[in-house]
Amino acid sequence: MKIALDAMGGDNAPHVTVLGARNALKLYADIDKLFLVGDAHALEKEMAECKLTDPRAVITHAPEVVGMDESGAKTLRRKKKSSISIATDMVKSGEADAVVSAGNTGAAVAAATVKLRTLKGVDRAGIASAIPNEHGICQILDAGANPEAKPQHLITYAVMGAVYAKNVLGVDVPRVGLMSNGEEDEKGTTFTKETFALLKHLQSTGRAPFEFVGNVEGHDLFESKLDVVLCDGFTGNIILKSCEATAKAMSKWLKLEFKRSPFRIMGAAIARGAFKAVKKKSSYEYVGGSPLLGVNGVCIIGHGSSSALAIQNAIRVARETVSLKVNPHIEETLAAMHRPSEDEAANA
Amino acid sequence: MKIALDAMGGDNAPHVTVLGARNALKLYADIDKLFLVGDAHALEKEMAECKLTDPRAVITHAPEVVGMDESGAKTLRRKKKSSISIATDMVKSGEADAVVSAGNTGAAVAAATVKLRTLKGVDRAGIASAIPNEHGICQILDAGANPEAKPQHLITYAVMGAVYAKNVLGVDVPRVGLMSNGEEDEKGTTFTKETFALLKHLQSTGRAPFEFVGNVEGHDLFESKLDVVLCDGFTGNIILKSCEATAKAMSKWLKLEFKRSPFRIMGAAIARGAFKAVKKKSSYEYVGGSPLLGVNGVCIIGHGSSSALAIQNAIRVARETVSLKVNPHIEETLAAMHRPSEDEAANA
Repeated sequence: MKIALDAMGGDNAPHVTVLGARNALKLYADIDKLFLVGDAHALEKEMAECKLTDPRAVITHAPEVVGMDESGAKTLRRKKKSSISIATDMVKSGEADAVVSAGNTGAAVAAATVKLRTLKGVDRAGIASAIPNEHGICQILDAGANPEAKPQHLITYAVMGAVYAKNVLGVDVPRVGLMSNGEEDEKGTTFTKETFALLKHLQSTGRAPFEFVGNVEGHDLFESKLDVVLCDGFTGNIILKSCEATAKAMSKWLKLEFKRSPFRIMGAAIARGAFKAVKKKSSYEYVGGSPLLGVNGVCIIGHGSSSALAIQNAIRVARETVSLKVNPHIEETLAAMHRPSEDEAANA
Repeated sequence: MKIALDAMGGDNAPHVTVLGARNALKLYADIDKLFLVGDAHALEKEMAECKLTDPRAVITHAPEVVGMDESGAKTLRRKKKSSISIATDMVKSGEADAVVSAGNTGAAVAAATVKLRTLKGVDRAGIASAIPNEHGICQILDAGANPEAKPQHLITYAVMGAVYAKNVLGVDVPRVGLMSNGEEDEKGTTFTKETFALLKHLQSTGRAPFEFVGNVEGHDLFESKLDVVLCDGFTGNIILKSCEATAKAMSKWLKLEFKRSPFRIMGAAIARGAFKAVKKKSSYEYVGGSPLLGVNGVCIIGHGSSSALAIQNAIRVARETVSLKVNPHIEETLAAMHRPSEDEAANA
């Protein structure tokens, strides 16, 4: 398997990208080539410093970078030699099986959708971001690729999220919920109500590759047995950032409170294993990266402030998405849903 | 001052409503009457148990209750003798200055908007929910009254939130942000971009009673000097519930981890003051209730799972909103914004 890493993408690149690449290569024997795409000079230096000598790590020079604060799609058109652009081109040409980027999300999404196009049966791609849930992993879909989604897009997201949950996370019958402002069936906006009706209809045909559990709310993300939570990309992006910000604020306030007395500092030190365990459960470092589902190629999007561990895990997600054939499964599942049933064929 | 409390509203009513009423009466000498609206028999019994003997506590019988799981607006039309309906009628008739309810939010909003109507210059009411922020209180507006808001509604929300921040929270020039999926000016949906342009325009006229700081994201809720975060009621409701759910999940997971070893339990016990302080900072119990801004009367909405402390604080919020004349200030501010300036008057 060959993976193209946007080695210049992210707040802490290229240091953490090179470190993450080194650690991933140590762990994963099935990676044949890991292309580090970016400024060759900077990357050579970083590789020497990080002692990355594995011959599978290959630098592909890209003279430009899309900055984290630049308008992704616009800058992409201007910077044709940027690391994310060239890394995505490598997937398009078949040189690589997947692209991984913790850089500008807008640029990564635009590069993938423009260069790779969408899978057969898919109108719009969506980012599946993992939320740590008591029963496993709950994916928010879409977490930001398609801010003004149409109801039909969410139906495809439901199918793609279910295929991912089944093939990568090992869930037999994935449970899909629709994010709304209340759990009752009649709650929501015109948009969510239309989506709700389409999901109910699909469920009633017996062709949905998932179980639709109805409207869900914030607490369901963490507590309920749920594999996919559907929403438009605007809402999903805001949910994800709000949850992350809450966890960060709680942790910061707790640290400040500990520092108010030597006893509290001691108590916190004694219980530190618990804090580490919760941090591990809730941190995106362990999740790694979010697949951009629906593009014709594998594209994994990392958090802008990814650490080396996050990069390593984003590479793991890319490996899984490729080797477990998520894209072929998505196309097959969508085709099967639209194929006439035996009864329909007989009546035709 | 006279306050009508929906004594049957909330998951733990009437026990916590009566307890909260008793405690509020002990604290606030400026309450002349506190009407406990609900089933007279149940309330008499509860008052005896809670030793609520203050003569300012007066039962107003209401034979019906809108359940927490019922469709608020629909049920309200059917249950004309429900506690929330009668409590709101008392504000309409002038018997009470404010209504406080921790019951079905949909019913409380519908009762207030239908019976009290909106203030002059206000099209739609919005719920201002407080988020604990490092610099004080940040209000999310709207937190759920108006799920499909129009850009113009958010302009009025900005003004109302600013008036509340100025008059109740003591902020000189309130800072207002627009929730979006990124901080850059060009981020957002058609809806947020239109709202952004209207806010920029209002700011440019010099007539905005606030400073518009642009688009904001999840972390700004907790970290940035911000008094009001604008969004439609669908998004606001989801943000609020997601933040609350994250805090709850973190706290639950931490407790589970502490229990894994006696050392951790001991450490957590030694540091317990820190946990209590963060809980106090982040709990809605201390916030109390959220004003429904824009209705012609004071309506304070409490959390469904309000404790006695939350009810007591919701009554405090009602007192402040009445005595600090939030509604007259909103009407004056909106009128002043639309009044021609001296230059315009001279040119007319």
